[in-house]
Amino acid sequence: MGPDGAGHYVKMVHNGIEYGDMQLICEAYAILSSVLGLNAAELADIFSEWNRGDLDSYLIDITSQIFRKHDPETGKPMVDVILDKAGQKGTGIWTLQSAIRQSIVISTINAAVEARVISSRKEERVKASKILPQPKIEKFSGDRDELITAVRDALYASKIVSYAQGMELLGAASTEFNWNLNFGDIATIWRGGCIIRAKFLNRIVEAYERDPALQNLLLDSYFTDIIRKTQHNWRIAVATAVEQGVAVPAFSASLAYFDSYRQARLPSNLLQAQRDFFGAHTYERVDKPGVFHTEWLEPAKQPTEKPAAPKEAPRRHAGE
Amino acid sequence: MGPDGAGHYVKMVHNGIEYGDMQLICEAYAILSSVLGLNAAELADIFSEWNRGDLDSYLIDITSQIFRKHDPETGKPMVDVILDKAGQKGTGIWTLQSAIRQSIVISTINAAVEARVISSRKEERVKASKILPQPKIEKFSGDRDELITAVRDALYASKIVSYAQGMELLGAASTEFNWNLNFGDIATIWRGGCIIRAKFLNRIVEAYERDPALQNLLLDSYFTDIIRKTQHNWRIAVATAVEQGVAVPAFSASLAYFDSYRQARLPSNLLQAQRDFFGAHTYERVDKPGVFHTEWLEPAKQPTEKPAAPKEAPRRHAGE
Repeated sequence: MGPDGAGHYVKMVHNGIEYGDMQLICEAYAILSSVLGLNAAELADIFSEWNRGDLDSYLIDITSQIFRKHDPETGKPMVDVILDKAGQKGTGIWTLQSAIRQSIVISTINAAVEARVISSRKEERVKASKILPQPKIEKFSGDRDELITAVRDALYASKIVSYAQGMELLGAASTEFNWNLNFGDIATIWRGGCIIRAKFLNRIVEAYERDPALQNLLLDSYFTDIIRKTQHNWRIAVATAVEQGVAVPAFSASLAYFDSYRQARLPSNLLQAQRDFFGAHTYERVDKPGVFHTEWLEPAKQPTEKPAAPKEAPRRHAGE
Repeated sequence: MGPDGAGHYVKMVHNGIEYGDMQLICEAYAILSSVLGLNAAELADIFSEWNRGDLDSYLIDITSQIFRKHDPETGKPMVDVILDKAGQKGTGIWTLQSAIRQSIVISTINAAVEARVISSRKEERVKASKILPQPKIEKFSGDRDELITAVRDALYASKIVSYAQGMELLGAASTEFNWNLNFGDIATIWRGGCIIRAKFLNRIVEAYERDPALQNLLLDSYFTDIIRKTQHNWRIAVATAVEQGVAVPAFSASLAYFDSYRQARLPSNLLQAQRDFFGAHTYERVDKPGVFHTEWLEPAKQPTEKPAAPKEAPRRHAGE
């Protein structure tokens, strides 16, 4: 895999990606079971079908098998007797720690790790569920099969974002430690026998064959095309989940990443204005190079509507 | 504030919360400007109005002042000439690192830090914006004033989640280091002169007066009531942003946290089944105590639809 700790690092990121894949599948399951009321047998058929398409992978395959398995004691589907309290052994957390240190956003994996933490606080959630206001949900009035397709597309698009983030983390580590990692080789190895093995990894191998220096997986033409085809459904699945009260932290983190990354202009100009206002942190301009500061509180031509408010910036807390 | 490093720790979490507040305001700005096309003068009026209600705070106040400020050189509103490339000095990242170590979910602050990182990659985003498929957006057909109110409610509800997460992190540190922190006192101090000062902090002080051992701020009756009133609008704002292609990482992370925390049952039962399937990690059951394992691959009564697929779990990668 490469010199020194490279192999271990790649395995760590593999496990982080595995966390993301598993959480995304759980969110697809949550939408289909909560919004459409599908039972285990119906879910098994859907995941079997998905496994014959672009999502073909070990995790989708075993998910369909899980949905078919019945508890010998109660006769119920196994998923329905298993407690919703996820365990974890630590590498998801290590992946996050490394990403933070490298200033790389792996928001899908992040959401997956957070989801495991919240799920593990089962007793607290049971208590909270009795205290917190549950949403008043209008019965889903859309088309069943269209929503199933939308969830599949959301799963695929979110997965692409998650792999793009994971590969970017590998790239940052490769640069920092001079590992000279070959991302096509990594995807080839992952395709072999590990838990995230999937047909999809062939597409990643091909993307790095087209451009070994690909800056972000999302920018490869194959994946750009997938996003073009799935984007509308992705939004439908996430918006439906939001309206119907289904928690979709990883779906929405993936979409928010895409919606941030694809935008030439984000609202952070306001954030820079705030930082300059309260802490004189300066800002750049859109129309010329340099670093600038504004005296925000000099006698305003347009006075604010709250003239009695304290006018000085709280300089003893310079903020961030 | 307390012994040893307690004061520094509380200041660090303060700064993390400040990151969250600023990002939430930016997302409100993004929805209002992108979806409704509001200009700086209109935004100034809206933030001034918000500052007379529950959102009354230093950051909302300066935001309205920022929107009123014009660039003397070009005559344009200052926000429109400032580059959308956020800086940061590190305490947001320290807060995340500490939260990861403590297994506390601070997903709103997390999204805020990630948003700054993505915003700082301006040149890459400009390039990506030309390559990635932009969404085909249907013109917003809803009511202007209703969306403004929905965004305000989303901002308030998300802010409550963010503070609940931040206070939980303080609680975990207080327990670990035996600081015996008084959360009401902390909220009182923050109310005084720092950047997150807000009328809202009085409500936090009162919540801890009602119950000094409050497990989660969301569970206090005042905040439960706010969530009851804002929840529907919160979902409308996030769903609208998702449909309209506006990146709302912090709004949606806050909502996903709420939707996870308030649910007695999450889809993590499937995740536990997967972990038991590929790595024999065991699971608990809903109907009796104990730890269980299923032989998922013993001759199935209902054979899977892909009998040719490899049947052995990839034990050399035990997964997580």
